[in-house]
Amino acid sequence: MNESEIAVAPMHRLCEKAGADRVSQAGAKELAKILEEVGAKIAREALDYAVHAHRKTIKAEDIEIATRKVMKK
Amino acid sequence: MNESEIAVAPMHRLCEKAGADRVSQAGAKELAKILEEVGAKIAREALDYAVHAHRKTIKAEDIEIATRKVMKK
Repeated sequence: MNESEIAVAPMHRLCEKAGADRVSQAGAKELAKILEEVGAKIAREALDYAVHAHRKTIKAEDIEIATRKVMKK
Repeated sequence: MNESEIAVAPMHRLCEKAGADRVSQAGAKELAKILEEVGAKIAREALDYAVHAHRKTIKAEDIEIATRKVMKK
């Protein structure tokens, strides 16, 4: 992955919603990086399910099952 | 959480980077919703660690330990 897709600014708001006074810039960047990694992992799993269903378009149902797998829910 | 912090457009790019031709709008929204939930969960855990260290600012180290906990890594 060359560049990050998930912006850092929303990470500040996520942390403030969680009750934090603030989040350091390094903390916000770390959270964005982690969510990007989790998102990429879910997307790769979802693609496997889509391809298995003879599609090349990822649908919501692929995301759902991929999430259960990645998050071990 | 009233409104979503994570935008839907980057979810399309995440899925394309994963190798998908495309992702349905519902799929992209689902992925954004999931990453928002994961992010909120990590932020809440991170805040617990920050408060435990007598801080109200979340730092990168709080995000890292919270992620290990949330993702059971």
